[in-house]
Amino acid sequence: MLKFNEEKQVESVNGALQLRGSIEKIVDEIYAAGFDNIFYLGIGGTYASSMQAVTYITGKSALPVYVENAAEYLTTGNRKLTSKSVVIISSVTGSTEEMVRAVSQVKEIGARILGFIDVKDTPLAQSVDYLISYPANEQIKFFMVADRFMFNNGDFPQYEQFYKELDEHLAIALVEAEKAADSFGMKFAQDHKDDSMHYFIGAGNQWGAVYSYAMCYWEEQHWLRSKSIHSSEFFHGTLEVIDRDTAVTLFIGEDEQRPLSERVAEFLPRVCSRYTIIDTKDYELKGISPEFRGRISHLVLRAITSRIDAYVEKLNCHPMEIRRYYRQLKY
Amino acid sequence: MLKFNEEKQVESVNGALQLRGSIEKIVDEIYAAGFDNIFYLGIGGTYASSMQAVTYITGKSALPVYVENAAEYLTTGNRKLTSKSVVIISSVTGSTEEMVRAVSQVKEIGARILGFIDVKDTPLAQSVDYLISYPANEQIKFFMVADRFMFNNGDFPQYEQFYKELDEHLAIALVEAEKAADSFGMKFAQDHKDDSMHYFIGAGNQWGAVYSYAMCYWEEQHWLRSKSIHSSEFFHGTLEVIDRDTAVTLFIGEDEQRPLSERVAEFLPRVCSRYTIIDTKDYELKGISPEFRGRISHLVLRAITSRIDAYVEKLNCHPMEIRRYYRQLKY
Repeated sequence: MLKFNEEKQVESVNGALQLRGSIEKIVDEIYAAGFDNIFYLGIGGTYASSMQAVTYITGKSALPVYVENAAEYLTTGNRKLTSKSVVIISSVTGSTEEMVRAVSQVKEIGARILGFIDVKDTPLAQSVDYLISYPANEQIKFFMVADRFMFNNGDFPQYEQFYKELDEHLAIALVEAEKAADSFGMKFAQDHKDDSMHYFIGAGNQWGAVYSYAMCYWEEQHWLRSKSIHSSEFFHGTLEVIDRDTAVTLFIGEDEQRPLSERVAEFLPRVCSRYTIIDTKDYELKGISPEFRGRISHLVLRAITSRIDAYVEKLNCHPMEIRRYYRQLKY
Repeated sequence: MLKFNEEKQVESVNGALQLRGSIEKIVDEIYAAGFDNIFYLGIGGTYASSMQAVTYITGKSALPVYVENAAEYLTTGNRKLTSKSVVIISSVTGSTEEMVRAVSQVKEIGARILGFIDVKDTPLAQSVDYLISYPANEQIKFFMVADRFMFNNGDFPQYEQFYKELDEHLAIALVEAEKAADSFGMKFAQDHKDDSMHYFIGAGNQWGAVYSYAMCYWEEQHWLRSKSIHSSEFFHGTLEVIDRDTAVTLFIGEDEQRPLSERVAEFLPRVCSRYTIIDTKDYELKGISPEFRGRISHLVLRAITSRIDAYVEKLNCHPMEIRRYYRQLKY
């Protein structure tokens, strides 16, 4: 299988899950000390992950949690973000300009910052109150924080059972999903590698991942045009430009917003012949209880799209690492 | 001037501003009684207006205010929306399915609902706690509510002065902006009526309007493909698909997020030859003090784009009223 190292991926996910002890200690300490608001602060891909975490929490908990975009924060500010607030961030490089500046502003205000910064010795990593350095797996990290806050808040009584299942089965379930999606991914890449435009639709905890897939993968890494649209919003505008030959991919997850995407699934075949439906229900996820599957729908999405990416990259002879403008020009 | 009735538009805006007495009475009553959270609840175009109002408030006030999407609310719910909450909605027809169902759910919870429903005798209009029926001007209505909440909260000491200026000058300032934009609108329509794809970029209180312009106007009413992207997020993906011939329109407003759009304005000419910049600063807005101009940037945007719409409609022989699928099919 192309660009697939099973052992390394299993190790990566399991290593992320093993951060739980550290995360629990930090979140429990913050929860006990008290706070007014929780902010997931990001930009681009990390903003997308932040949206996912906040959507995930909203239906399950009354915790006062907000998404904040780093660049918007730097200009508009946020009067709800105070010295009593908690800010959760993630950065691979530790050098994203907007994040570095936003964190410096948050520090002046005196809010506590929990940072997942992969590169430990960057100034950004050194400046956060609670640092966890471990590569990749941003969504797992963000959701572990969310889950621990909700556990403390009495919103997640099945917490221990859920993480027992993840510890034992998640890593394997995800690589198995990748294997199961491999031939589909190849076919999809063959069919869509030359698309002039591709619409990606999704909802729930997958929405942030869909937003990011269109923007951070198709646009940024494949240089292919794409638009993401939420399943709920699709019916209020975008549907009108869909016709027989429009390339549309709908992601269906298993959380509470599943019906929103199912509605799109019923509509699409009536007006379009070039649609694809990617439903997490079609993947086994051995060892994960039915009631917990929705909580990881966004991770399953990513396992499947990673197969598409591997083949688009190869077929288009376009290494995903290259950038036309990002960090190539000063702007 | 095409599709332009100066007298009617002045009357429409002034009539909306005259709702202020009723709005003040309602908001003052709610504020005095107390509340836990404020929600702007919408879908499609009204969701976009909700985003604008919440962005507008965020930097100016610590009021606990959230955007909520009606369809997401119907599935995920929102544990922060309680019997002590305030929900603000708007609906032209009073019949949008998701809104009708969401409001019914909110009523069960017992939150107070302030509704701007243009059609007074719909069940939706009859079901809200506070009803204001007046056609169009959704953004002015939403922002008047926001401003009165902030005034009560001590976040807007210049409230009276600001509204004195709007009462005296806004309606004329906006029709004058339309007139000033007319020849530009015609040229823009000529240049872009056949675009296979058009990118719209913006920030601040204009962001919701940009999101809506791409989706509710170009896609829904002109059947033209478009993608909206926030000025802050543009640099984290979408920039990579912009090349010499890409049609890109950047909106620049005058609120705190202006620098985010200015950054895009500096970048675009280096990589693209088919970009347009629409800056509210180029419009006079007679009688509006410099410090207040940013608060109405989204209205100026709409005045300008309405000129584009008039000419795209005419040149493309595509009446903006027609829909391919929306309310034509059951789905």
